[in-house]
Amino acid sequence: MRTQRTRNRVLAESLRLFNERGETHVTTGVIAEALDMSPGNLYYHFRNKDQIIEELFALFEARIAVEPRVSGGGAAAMEDLWLYLHLMLEGIWEFRFLYRNLDDLLARNRRLREPFNRIIDRKQESVIALCEELVRVRAMRAQPEEIRALARNVLVVATYWLNFQAVRGRREAAGVEDLGLGAYQVMALVAPYLQGEAREHLDHLSKNYID
Amino acid sequence: MRTQRTRNRVLAESLRLFNERGETHVTTGVIAEALDMSPGNLYYHFRNKDQIIEELFALFEARIAVEPRVSGGGAAAMEDLWLYLHLMLEGIWEFRFLYRNLDDLLARNRRLREPFNRIIDRKQESVIALCEELVRVRAMRAQPEEIRALARNVLVVATYWLNFQAVRGRREAAGVEDLGLGAYQVMALVAPYLQGEAREHLDHLSKNYID
Repeated sequence: MRTQRTRNRVLAESLRLFNERGETHVTTGVIAEALDMSPGNLYYHFRNKDQIIEELFALFEARIAVEPRVSGGGAAAMEDLWLYLHLMLEGIWEFRFLYRNLDDLLARNRRLREPFNRIIDRKQESVIALCEELVRVRAMRAQPEEIRALARNVLVVATYWLNFQAVRGRREAAGVEDLGLGAYQVMALVAPYLQGEAREHLDHLSKNYID
Repeated sequence: MRTQRTRNRVLAESLRLFNERGETHVTTGVIAEALDMSPGNLYYHFRNKDQIIEELFALFEARIAVEPRVSGGGAAAMEDLWLYLHLMLEGIWEFRFLYRNLDDLLARNRRLREPFNRIIDRKQESVIALCEELVRVRAMRAQPEEIRALARNVLVVATYWLNFQAVRGRREAAGVEDLGLGAYQVMALVAPYLQGEAREHLDHLSKNYID
Protein backbone atom coordinates (compact mmCIF):
# COMPACT_ATOMS: atom_id res chain seq x y z
CA MET A 1 0.00 0.00 0.00
CA ARG A 2 2.64 2.46 1.12
CA THR A 3 4.96 1.11 -1.58
CA GLN A 4 2.36 1.80 -4.25
CA ARG A 5 1.86 5.33 -2.98
CA THR A 6 5.59 6.00 -3.11
CA ARG A 7 5.82 4.58 -6.62
CA ASN A 8 2.99 6.82 -7.74
CA ARG A 9 4.62 9.86 -6.17
CA VAL A 10 7.85 9.08 -8.04
CA LEU A 11 5.96 8.66 -11.31
CA ALA A 12 3.99 11.88 -10.88
CA GLU A 13 7.06 13.94 -9.96
CA SER A 14 9.11 12.41 -12.78
CA LEU A 15 6.39 13.26 -15.27
CA ARG A 16 6.25 16.84 -14.00
CA LEU A 17 10.02 17.27 -14.20
CA PHE A 18 10.36 15.54 -17.58
CA ASN A 19 7.65 17.73 -19.07
CA GLU A 20 9.11 20.87 -17.59
CA ARG A 21 12.81 20.36 -18.29
CA GLY A 22 12.98 17.66 -20.94
CA GLU A 23 13.67 14.06 -20.00
CA THR A 24 17.37 14.13 -20.96
CA HIS A 25 18.04 16.88 -18.42
CA VAL A 26 16.44 15.09 -15.47
CA THR A 27 18.45 12.41 -13.64
CA THR A 28 17.15 10.02 -10.99
CA GLY A 29 19.15 12.12 -8.53
CA VAL A 30 17.12 15.20 -9.46
CA ILE A 31 13.89 13.25 -9.05
CA ALA A 32 14.92 11.89 -5.63
CA GLU A 33 15.94 15.36 -4.46
CA ALA A 34 12.68 16.93 -5.64
CA LEU A 35 10.81 14.30 -3.58
CA ASP A 36 13.11 14.74 -0.59
CA MET A 37 13.91 11.05 -0.90
CA SER A 38 17.23 9.21 -0.72
CA PRO A 39 18.55 7.87 -4.04
CA GLY A 40 18.64 4.42 -2.42
CA ASN A 41 14.95 4.59 -1.65
CA LEU A 42 14.22 5.60 -5.26
CA TYR A 43 16.27 2.68 -6.56
CA TYR A 44 14.34 0.35 -4.25
CA HIS A 45 11.24 1.24 -6.32
CA PHE A 46 12.75 1.76 -9.78
CA ARG A 47 15.82 0.07 -11.24
CA ASN A 48 16.74 3.12 -13.34
CA LYS A 49 15.36 6.06 -15.26
CA ASP A 50 14.42 3.90 -18.24
CA GLN A 51 12.07 1.91 -16.02
CA ILE A 52 10.39 5.14 -14.91
CA ILE A 53 10.02 6.20 -18.56
CA GLU A 54 8.57 2.83 -19.52
CA GLU A 55 6.00 2.94 -16.73
CA LEU A 56 5.02 6.49 -17.65
CA PHE A 57 4.69 5.31 -21.23
CA ALA A 58 2.33 2.53 -20.08
CA LEU A 59 0.22 5.16 -18.28
CA PHE A 60 0.21 7.26 -21.45
CA GLU A 61 -0.83 4.26 -23.53
CA ALA A 62 -3.79 3.63 -21.21
CA ARG A 63 -4.67 7.33 -21.18
CA ILE A 64 -4.69 7.59 -24.96
CA ALA A 65 -6.53 4.31 -25.60
CA VAL A 66 -9.94 5.99 -25.77
CA GLU A 67 -11.72 5.32 -29.04
CA PRO A 68 -13.79 7.81 -31.00
CA ARG A 69 -17.47 7.09 -31.30
CA VAL A 70 -19.89 8.27 -33.89
CA SER A 71 -23.27 8.45 -32.29
CA GLY A 72 -25.09 9.70 -35.34
CA GLY A 73 -24.74 11.60 -38.56
CA GLY A 74 -24.11 15.30 -38.99
CA ALA A 75 -23.89 17.60 -35.99
CA ALA A 76 -23.69 14.86 -33.33
CA ALA A 77 -20.81 13.19 -35.17
CA MET A 78 -18.90 16.46 -35.28
CA GLU A 79 -19.38 17.00 -31.55
CA ASP A 80 -18.03 13.49 -30.93
CA LEU A 81 -15.05 14.06 -33.18
CA TRP A 82 -14.26 17.42 -31.59
CA LEU A 83 -14.40 15.95 -28.09
CA TYR A 84 -12.26 13.01 -29.14
CA LEU A 85 -9.60 15.28 -30.60
CA HIS A 86 -9.48 17.34 -27.43
CA LEU A 87 -9.03 14.19 -25.36
CA MET A 88 -6.22 13.00 -27.65
CA LEU A 89 -4.37 16.29 -27.60
CA GLU A 90 -4.81 16.58 -23.83
CA GLY A 91 -3.28 13.12 -23.44
CA ILE A 92 -0.32 14.10 -25.59
CA TRP A 93 0.02 17.34 -23.65
CA GLU A 94 -0.02 15.57 -20.27
CA PHE A 95 2.83 13.33 -21.42
CA ARG A 96 4.44 15.87 -23.73
CA PHE A 97 8.00 14.95 -22.77
CA LEU A 98 7.52 11.78 -24.87
CA TYR A 99 6.88 13.87 -27.97
CA ARG A 100 9.42 16.55 -27.48
CA ASN A 101 12.38 14.70 -28.92
CA LEU A 102 10.60 11.64 -30.13
CA ASP A 103 13.34 10.49 -32.50
CA ASP A 104 15.99 10.56 -29.80
CA LEU A 105 13.72 8.94 -27.24
CA LEU A 106 12.87 6.06 -29.58
CA ALA A 107 16.50 5.72 -30.67
CA ARG A 108 17.72 5.51 -27.09
CA ASN A 109 14.89 3.41 -25.78
CA ARG A 110 14.05 0.86 -28.45
CA ARG A 111 11.51 -0.86 -26.24
CA LEU A 112 9.21 2.13 -26.74
CA ARG A 113 9.41 1.94 -30.53
CA GLU A 114 6.91 -0.87 -31.03
CA PRO A 115 4.31 0.27 -28.48
CA PHE A 116 4.52 3.81 -29.83
CA ASN A 117 3.89 2.59 -33.35
CA ARG A 118 1.09 0.41 -32.02
CA ILE A 119 -0.61 3.57 -30.72
CA ILE A 120 -0.22 5.33 -34.09
CA ASP A 121 -1.46 2.22 -35.94
CA ARG A 122 -4.59 2.06 -33.80
CA LYS A 123 -5.28 5.77 -34.10
CA GLN A 124 -4.86 5.63 -37.84
CA GLU A 125 -7.31 2.72 -38.02
CA SER A 126 -9.74 4.64 -35.79
CA VAL A 127 -9.61 7.69 -38.05
CA ILE A 128 -10.19 5.51 -41.11
CA ALA A 129 -13.12 3.69 -39.45
CA LEU A 130 -14.59 7.01 -38.36
CA CYS A 131 -14.34 8.46 -41.86
CA GLU A 132 -15.91 5.33 -43.34
CA GLU A 133 -18.77 5.70 -40.91
CA LEU A 134 -19.18 9.38 -41.85
CA VAL A 135 -19.23 8.36 -45.51
CA ARG A 136 -21.85 5.72 -44.71
CA VAL A 137 -24.17 8.23 -43.04
CA ARG A 138 -23.48 10.67 -45.92
CA ALA A 139 -21.81 13.26 -43.69
CA MET A 140 -18.60 12.84 -45.71
CA ARG A 141 -17.68 12.30 -49.30
CA ALA A 142 -14.24 10.74 -49.88
CA GLN A 143 -12.58 7.92 -51.80
CA PRO A 144 -10.78 5.14 -49.89
CA GLU A 145 -7.33 6.43 -50.92
CA GLU A 146 -8.29 9.96 -49.88
CA ILE A 147 -9.29 8.61 -46.48
CA ARG A 148 -5.95 6.81 -46.10
CA ALA A 149 -3.95 9.95 -46.96
CA LEU A 150 -6.22 11.99 -44.68
CA ALA A 151 -5.69 9.59 -41.77
CA ARG A 152 -1.90 9.79 -42.20
CA ASN A 153 -2.04 13.59 -42.21
CA VAL A 154 -4.29 13.61 -39.13
CA LEU A 155 -1.68 11.54 -37.33
CA VAL A 156 1.24 13.72 -38.45
CA VAL A 157 -0.50 16.93 -37.37
CA ALA A 158 -1.75 15.50 -34.05
CA THR A 159 1.64 13.94 -33.25
CA TYR A 160 3.74 17.02 -33.99
CA TRP A 161 1.33 19.86 -33.28
CA LEU A 162 2.76 20.76 -29.88
CA ASN A 163 6.31 20.64 -31.23
CA PHE A 164 5.34 22.92 -34.06
CA GLN A 165 3.66 25.36 -31.69
CA ALA A 166 6.69 25.40 -29.41
CA VAL A 167 8.93 26.24 -32.37
CA ARG A 168 6.45 28.80 -33.72
CA GLY A 169 5.77 30.37 -30.36
CA ARG A 170 9.51 30.92 -29.90
CA ARG A 171 8.98 29.07 -26.61
CA GLU A 172 10.57 26.08 -24.93
CA ALA A 173 7.31 24.14 -24.85
CA ALA A 174 3.77 24.51 -26.09
CA GLY A 175 1.08 25.49 -23.61
CA VAL A 176 -2.32 24.08 -22.81
CA GLU A 177 -3.79 27.05 -24.74
CA ASP A 178 -2.36 25.53 -27.94
CA LEU A 179 -4.61 22.46 -27.68
CA GLY A 180 -7.71 24.19 -29.02
CA LEU A 181 -5.88 25.44 -32.07
CA GLY A 182 -4.48 21.93 -32.53
CA ALA A 183 -7.98 20.48 -32.57
CA TYR A 184 -9.00 23.20 -35.02
CA GLN A 185 -6.07 22.34 -37.32
CA VAL A 186 -6.91 18.64 -37.29
CA MET A 187 -10.57 19.39 -37.98
CA ALA A 188 -9.45 21.61 -40.87
CA LEU A 189 -7.96 18.47 -42.45
CA VAL A 190 -11.31 16.71 -42.28
CA ALA A 191 -13.52 19.71 -43.12
CA PRO A 192 -13.27 19.81 -46.94
CA TYR A 193 -14.54 16.22 -47.16
CA LEU A 194 -17.62 16.92 -45.05
CA GLN A 195 -20.98 17.84 -46.45
CA GLY A 196 -24.40 19.00 -45.30
CA GLU A 197 -25.14 19.38 -41.62
CA ALA A 198 -21.78 17.93 -40.56
CA ARG A 199 -19.91 20.62 -42.48
CA GLU A 200 -22.12 23.40 -41.16
CA HIS A 201 -21.78 22.25 -37.59
CA LEU A 202 -18.01 21.99 -37.92
CA ASP A 203 -17.81 25.55 -39.27
CA HIS A 204 -19.87 26.60 -36.28
CA LEU A 205 -17.58 24.77 -33.81
CA SER A 206 -14.48 26.21 -35.50
CA LYS A 207 -15.63 29.81 -35.21
CA ASN A 208 -14.34 30.00 -31.63
CA TYR A 209 -10.81 29.40 -32.80
CA ILE A 210 -10.55 31.76 -35.70
CA ASP A 211 -12.25 34.80 -34.22
CA MET B 1 41.62 29.72 -51.69
CA ARG B 2 43.02 26.69 -49.90
CA THR B 3 41.35 27.96 -46.71
CA GLN B 4 37.97 28.09 -48.40
CA ARG B 5 38.43 24.56 -49.72
CA THR B 6 39.25 23.28 -46.25
CA ARG B 7 36.27 25.07 -44.75
CA ASN B 8 34.00 23.51 -47.33
CA ARG B 9 35.42 20.04 -46.66
CA VAL B 10 34.74 20.49 -42.95
CA LEU B 11 31.18 21.65 -43.62
CA ALA B 12 30.45 18.79 -46.03
CA GLU B 13 31.85 16.13 -43.70
CA SER B 14 30.09 17.64 -40.67
CA LEU B 15 26.79 17.60 -42.56
CA ARG B 16 27.32 13.97 -43.53
CA LEU B 17 28.17 12.92 -39.97
CA PHE B 18 25.39 15.00 -38.36
CA ASN B 19 22.81 13.51 -40.73
CA GLU B 20 24.09 9.98 -40.21
CA ARG B 21 24.59 9.93 -36.45
CA GLY B 22 22.64 12.88 -35.12
CA GLU B 23 24.35 16.15 -34.30
CA THR B 24 24.53 15.58 -30.53
CA HIS B 25 26.63 12.45 -31.08
CA VAL B 26 29.26 14.11 -33.27
CA THR B 27 32.04 16.15 -31.63
CA THR B 28 34.57 18.37 -33.39
CA GLY B 29 37.10 15.62 -32.55
CA VAL B 30 35.07 13.11 -34.55
CA ILE B 31 34.86 15.52 -37.48
CA ALA B 32 38.61 16.22 -37.44
CA GLU B 33 39.40 12.52 -37.27
CA ALA B 34 37.07 11.69 -40.17
CA LEU B 35 38.91 14.31 -42.24
CA ASP B 36 42.33 13.13 -41.09
CA MET B 37 42.90 16.63 -39.79
CA SER B 38 44.40 17.82 -36.50
CA PRO B 39 41.90 19.33 -34.01
CA GLY B 40 44.06 22.45 -34.03
CA ASN B 41 43.64 22.85 -37.76
CA LEU B 42 39.87 22.43 -37.42
CA TYR B 43 39.76 25.10 -34.70
CA TYR B 44 41.75 27.39 -36.95
CA HIS B 45 38.77 27.33 -39.32
CA PHE B 46 35.86 27.02 -36.89
CA ARG B 47 35.67 28.34 -33.35
CA ASN B 48 33.46 25.48 -32.16
CA LYS B 49 30.70 23.07 -33.22
CA ASP B 50 28.01 25.73 -32.89
CA GLN B 51 29.76 27.79 -35.56
CA ILE B 52 29.74 24.78 -37.90
CA ILE B 53 26.02 24.28 -37.21
CA GLU B 54 25.28 27.95 -37.84
CA GLU B 55 27.14 27.93 -41.16
CA LEU B 56 25.34 24.75 -42.22
CA PHE B 57 22.10 26.42 -41.27
CA ALA B 58 22.96 29.39 -43.50
CA LEU B 59 23.57 26.96 -46.39
CA PHE B 60 20.22 25.31 -45.64
CA GLU B 61 18.47 28.68 -45.58
CA ALA B 62 19.90 29.53 -49.04
CA ARG B 63 19.02 26.05 -50.32
CA ILE B 64 15.40 26.27 -49.15
CA ALA B 65 14.84 29.88 -50.28
CA VAL B 66 13.40 28.85 -53.65
CA GLU B 67 9.91 30.24 -54.22
CA PRO B 68 7.01 28.41 -55.84
CA ARG B 69 5.83 29.79 -59.13
CA VAL B 70 2.44 29.36 -60.70
CA SER B 71 2.93 29.52 -64.44
CA GLY B 72 -0.72 29.03 -65.34
CA GLY B 73 -3.99 27.57 -64.25
CA GLY B 74 -4.85 23.90 -63.98
CA ALA B 75 -2.37 21.23 -64.97
CA ALA B 76 0.69 23.53 -65.28
CA ALA B 77 0.09 24.92 -61.79
CA MET B 78 -0.02 21.40 -60.37
CA GLU B 79 3.26 20.47 -62.08
CA ASP B 80 4.85 23.59 -60.59
CA LEU B 81 3.51 22.80 -57.14
CA TRP B 82 4.65 19.18 -57.30
CA LEU B 83 8.16 20.20 -58.37
CA TYR B 84 8.32 22.85 -55.66
CA LEU B 85 7.32 20.36 -52.98
CA HIS B 86 9.99 17.92 -54.13
CA LEU B 87 12.61 20.67 -53.97
CA MET B 88 11.47 21.61 -50.46
CA LEU B 89 11.51 18.08 -49.15
CA GLU B 90 14.87 17.38 -50.78
CA GLY B 91 16.29 20.45 -49.06
CA ILE B 92 14.96 19.27 -45.70
CA TRP B 93 16.34 15.80 -46.38
CA GLU B 94 19.82 17.09 -47.27
CA PHE B 95 19.95 18.94 -43.94
CA ARG B 96 17.82 16.46 -42.04
CA PHE B 97 19.92 16.64 -38.86
CA LEU B 98 18.37 20.07 -38.26
CA TYR B 99 14.89 18.55 -38.13
CA ARG B 100 15.64 15.40 -36.24
CA ASN B 101 15.48 16.89 -32.78
CA LEU B 102 14.37 20.34 -33.67
CA ASP B 103 13.16 21.30 -30.20
CA ASP B 104 16.47 20.42 -28.59
CA LEU B 105 18.46 22.06 -31.32
CA LEU B 106 16.53 25.33 -31.01
CA ALA B 107 16.64 25.17 -27.21
CA ARG B 108 20.40 24.71 -27.20
CA ASN B 109 21.16 27.08 -30.01
CA ARG B 110 18.87 30.06 -29.63
CA ARG B 111 20.48 31.92 -32.50
CA LEU B 112 18.82 29.43 -34.86
CA ARG B 113 15.35 30.07 -33.47
CA GLU B 114 14.62 33.31 -35.30
CA PRO B 115 16.06 32.30 -38.70
CA PHE B 116 14.23 28.98 -38.51
CA ASN B 117 10.95 30.76 -37.84
CA ARG B 118 11.72 33.18 -40.62
CA ILE B 119 11.90 30.22 -43.01
CA ILE B 120 8.56 28.87 -41.79
CA ASP B 121 6.99 32.36 -41.97
CA ARG B 122 8.11 32.78 -45.58
CA LYS B 123 6.98 29.32 -46.60
CA GLN B 124 3.60 29.86 -44.99
CA GLU B 125 3.23 33.15 -46.86
CA SER B 126 4.27 31.41 -50.09
CA VAL B 127 1.65 28.70 -49.65
CA ILE B 128 -1.01 31.33 -48.95
CA ALA B 129 0.01 33.40 -52.01
CA LEU B 130 0.02 30.26 -54.15
CA CYS B 131 -3.46 29.25 -52.98
CA GLU B 132 -4.77 32.78 -53.57
CA GLU B 133 -3.37 32.60 -57.10
CA LEU B 134 -5.03 29.20 -57.63
CA VAL B 135 -8.31 30.69 -56.39
CA ARG B 136 -7.86 33.61 -58.78
CA VAL B 137 -7.42 31.34 -61.80
CA ARG B 138 -10.35 29.20 -60.55
CA ALA B 139 -8.22 26.11 -60.00
CA MET B 140 -9.08 26.22 -56.29
CA ARG B 141 -12.10 27.04 -54.21
CA ALA B 142 -11.36 28.04 -50.62
CA GLN B 143 -12.19 30.75 -48.10
CA PRO B 144 -9.38 32.92 -46.67
CA GLU B 145 -9.57 31.19 -43.26
CA GLU B 146 -9.48 27.78 -44.94
CA ILE B 147 -6.33 28.83 -46.79
CA ARG B 148 -4.69 29.97 -43.55
CA ALA B 149 -5.46 26.67 -41.79
CA LEU B 150 -4.34 24.77 -44.89
CA ALA B 151 -1.02 26.65 -45.04
CA ARG B 152 -0.36 25.86 -41.37
CA ASN B 153 -1.06 22.17 -41.97
CA VAL B 154 1.16 22.15 -45.06
CA LEU B 155 3.97 23.50 -42.92
CA VAL B 156 3.41 21.00 -40.10
CA VAL B 157 3.34 18.02 -42.49
CA ALA B 158 6.35 19.21 -44.54
CA THR B 159 8.37 20.05 -41.41
CA TYR B 160 7.75 16.78 -39.60
CA TRP B 161 7.21 14.33 -42.44
CA LEU B 162 10.68 12.78 -42.30
CA ASN B 163 10.48 12.44 -38.52
CA PHE B 164 7.13 10.74 -38.81
CA GLN B 165 8.42 8.36 -41.46
CA ALA B 166 11.46 7.50 -39.35
CA VAL B 167 9.21 6.65 -36.42
CA ARG B 168 6.76 4.74 -38.63
CA GLY B 169 9.45 2.88 -40.53
CA ARG B 170 10.91 1.68 -37.23
CA ARG B 171 14.16 3.18 -38.53
CA GLU B 172 16.72 5.62 -37.21
CA ALA B 173 16.13 8.04 -40.06
CA ALA B 174 13.85 8.43 -43.04
CA GLY B 175 15.26 7.63 -46.47
CA VAL B 176 15.25 9.50 -49.75
CA GLU B 177 12.48 7.14 -50.89
CA ASP B 178 10.17 8.75 -48.34
CA LEU B 179 10.28 12.11 -50.12
CA GLY B 180 7.82 11.14 -52.83
CA LEU B 181 5.28 9.99 -50.30
CA GLY B 182 5.87 13.22 -48.39
CA ALA B 183 5.04 15.27 -51.47
CA TYR B 184 1.98 13.09 -52.00
CA GLN B 185 0.83 13.70 -48.41
CA VAL B 186 1.24 17.46 -48.73
CA MET B 187 -0.61 17.46 -52.06
CA ALA B 188 -3.38 15.47 -50.36
CA LEU B 189 -3.89 18.46 -48.06
CA VAL B 190 -4.42 20.74 -51.03
CA ALA B 191 -6.38 18.30 -53.21
CA PRO B 192 -9.89 18.65 -51.78
CA TYR B 193 -9.87 22.40 -52.45
CA LEU B 194 -8.92 21.99 -56.12
CA GLN B 195 -11.39 21.85 -58.93
CA GLY B 196 -11.52 21.15 -62.65
CA GLU B 197 -8.36 20.44 -64.58
CA ALA B 198 -6.10 21.13 -61.59
CA ARG B 199 -7.83 18.43 -59.56
CA GLU B 200 -7.75 15.94 -62.40
CA HIS B 201 -4.09 16.55 -63.06
CA LEU B 202 -3.23 16.19 -59.40
CA ASP B 203 -5.07 12.87 -59.22
CA HIS B 204 -3.04 11.80 -62.25
CA LEU B 205 0.27 12.86 -60.64
CA SER B 206 -0.67 11.16 -57.38
CA LYS B 207 -1.36 7.80 -58.98
CA ASN B 208 2.36 6.93 -58.95
CA TYR B 209 2.39 7.04 -55.18
CA ILE B 210 -0.68 5.06 -54.32
CA ASP B 211 -0.31 2.20 -56.83
